[in-house]
Amino acid sequence: MPYVNIQITKEGGPDGKGATTEQKKKLIAGVTDLLKNELGKSPATTHVVISEVDLENWGVGGLAVEDYRRSQLS
Amino acid sequence: MPYVNIQITKEGGPDGKGATTEQKKKLIAGVTDLLKNELGKSPATTHVVISEVDLENWGVGGLAVEDYRRSQLS
Amino acid sequence: MPYVNIQITKEGGPDGKGATTEQKKKLIAGVTDLLKNELGKSPATTHVVISEVDLENWGVGGLAVEDYRRSQLS
Amino acid sequence: MPYVNIQITKEGGPDGKGATTEQKKKLIAGVTDLLKNELGKSPATTHVVISEVDLENWGVGGLAVEDYRRSQLS
Amino acid sequence: MPYVNIQITKEGGPDGKGATTEQKKKLIAGVTDLLKNELGKSPATTHVVISEVDLENWGVGGLAVEDYRRSQLS
Amino acid sequence: MPYVNIQITKEGGPDGKGATTEQKKKLIAGVTDLLKNELGKSPATTHVVISEVDLENWGVGGLAVEDYRRSQLS
Repeated sequence: MPYVNIQITKEGGPDGKGATTEQKKKLIAGVTDLLKNELGKSPATTHVVISEVDLENWGVGGLAVEDYRRSQLS
Repeated sequence: MPYVNIQITKEGGPDGKGATTEQKKKLIAGVTDLLKNELGKSPATTHVVISEVDLENWGVGGLAVEDYRRSQLS
Repeated sequence: MPYVNIQITKEGGPDGKGATTEQKKKLIAGVTDLLKNELGKSPATTHVVISEVDLENWGVGGLAVEDYRRSQLS
Repeated sequence: MPYVNIQITKEGGPDGKGATTEQKKKLIAGVTDLLKNELGKSPATTHVVISEVDLENWGVGGLAVEDYRRSQLS
Repeated sequence: MPYVNIQITKEGGPDGKGATTEQKKKLIAGVTDLLKNELGKSPATTHVVISEVDLENWGVGGLAVEDYRRSQLS
Repeated sequence: MPYVNIQITKEGGPDGKGATTEQKKKLIAGVTDLLKNELGKSPATTHVVISEVDLENWGVGGLAVEDYRRSQLS
């Protein structure tokens, strides 16, 4: 009975608008395999929910993500 | 002091675009009643948040939902 | 494909230590029925997770729950 | 290693469409400072995710938010 | 900037009390690698939180997990 | 209508077992004030839930927290 929530910033991908459907399928398959292989969890009851978060809604180091990245460069 | 998060795939409803405002009101009322009746929780401090998830962001059985459903039919 | 997380303060119940196993079963059944009846969601893919939170870890009105309740009485 | 999820109704702000980018930056900075000052948590590993919730997806008192507010006025 | 929450029922493992420290390390490493390989996400800002849920707090099919499993056998 | 979930590793504090009741009260008060001052959110409907996570259940950089810290020292 696993439930996995993957939160990622909505960015990157071929058009800069975030992960593609194919990439999401690989995430879902990969996490489900991992839980099966490491813990013996059944894929039939493994749910994966991907949450895409706008850049301005994610902060780290006390800064919004884009400001944080600029601060790391300088 | 309950907080309930209901995550559902965004689909169905009269136009295929997901639960209607009326359906959401019934969910909110129903969950709040349940917590009051079974646990004596006060509705005044019961918060319910409904999260609608795009089909391609939900996986089960190692597959995105739509692929999973197709696999169940065959 | 619903996933429901019910967060409640750990209190009450017959011994003051929180909801009993029977009460939890009623919550699980009740929420699952609600999603089936209002939205047509399949119970087979409806997961419910109950999270019990210690009183000192829940705040409302800027106060920990027990302080909040005392403030409401006076 | 803190992770903070701030869920707010999407409303208010200068155009009525919710918190501005500047307001979100202040939330991120403020929560990060709080965790540093009160608990000594390092900002470098403090992540903050803001989730904006449509009004019809938030319920309290058994009602959707807007119905709840009307009920409080009468 | 990924944050991953893995919720699993607390069971199994060598003593029946759930995943071991070693198994958790493999989950953390595996999810982090997956996000790096599929989406190019930096491990340095990938956080993984594992939540272990008591069996009586998890429901599926309208039943607590153990009742659900018994219902599947008959 | 804010709901805030603060997830922190369970460590530190006067006895090394995590944040004290007093520290939690300051977190609750501080986050509630922040939401009131920056966004005008009412404290009466601001709920804060603090989740304490065992060190072995939190990962960053592909490692459990304690391994991660050792790796940063070397």
